[in-house]
Amino acid sequence: MIPVETLVSSETFRQTMRLLAGGVCIAATEQDGQRLGLTVTAVCSVTLEPPTIILCVNRTAGAHDPIRARRRIAISVLASDQLELAERFSSSEVKGCARFQGSKWTDMATGTPAAVDALAALDCEIVQDMPIGQHSVFVCDFKAARLGAGKPPLVHFDRALRELSPL
Amino acid sequence: MIPVETLVSSETFRQTMRLLAGGVCIAATEQDGQRLGLTVTAVCSVTLEPPTIILCVNRTAGAHDPIRARRRIAISVLASDQLELAERFSSSEVKGCARFQGSKWTDMATGTPAAVDALAALDCEIVQDMPIGQHSVFVCDFKAARLGAGKPPLVHFDRALRELSPL
Repeated sequence: MIPVETLVSSETFRQTMRLLAGGVCIAATEQDGQRLGLTVTAVCSVTLEPPTIILCVNRTAGAHDPIRARRRIAISVLASDQLELAERFSSSEVKGCARFQGSKWTDMATGTPAAVDALAALDCEIVQDMPIGQHSVFVCDFKAARLGAGKPPLVHFDRALRELSPL
Repeated sequence: MIPVETLVSSETFRQTMRLLAGGVCIAATEQDGQRLGLTVTAVCSVTLEPPTIILCVNRTAGAHDPIRARRRIAISVLASDQLELAERFSSSEVKGCARFQGSKWTDMATGTPAAVDALAALDCEIVQDMPIGQHSVFVCDFKAARLGAGKPPLVHFDRALRELSPL
């Protein structure tokens, strides 16, 4: 390790967070017939009873306000063969409902869209939101799930999307 | 995907959360000269300004109360060659300060212990804790960092510890 402890600048924060590997997901909602969504890695399991997860979303993201207003989201956990979907939903050039074009989606019971062929899809209800800095931390009740076929996950690490191998 | 949406039982929650890949970390603190820590994957980057992360810890874990009381923790992000450390810090047979035996640790500025040869170590101050079910959600200011050498991360997925490969 570098022997000197560094006080956290923005660049140090980014460098460190890049080293925290995370499964890649798409968080999506539907409001007034329009689908909106974005690629996220800041998803975290919290507790079993009640089934709860946390999702952090930048308040400047186009999907943020619809997600907060609708309070229902589908979180699709992506497989390693869904790289293009992850890139499309984090692109600054493809926005709004155009992100959903060219791929297959299915409605969860509450109308939120989940990616077909995802490893899993979680139908969630936001029960609390906390603004922290430029982000909203959404505490979500996990209401229903679809579980997909066994495939390797898509993982983000050190500014790249990767897949897993056994140790 | 399985066409039927399943309401979330404990087993469904566990099955689904296993499919969310996550970097493996050790959260550790020091209180009255005694080191305590546990393996965690529920760590999540929140926002850049102020640099904030979230960590979820089961309230029944031996390290939970000392972490909450001390309000300072070091989070060591593990590399794929630190599998034994991850297993030792999640073992039900090795507890308390015995978990730190046989591996090298370094003190962060505030006295919290970080694993030498980790990918990164984060020195954090807990600024808020929220009880949700059996867990505490700790909102942490990320105060200082040590960044290690470039190694692949240790990743948890589907009940196993794995390493990453390029796509």
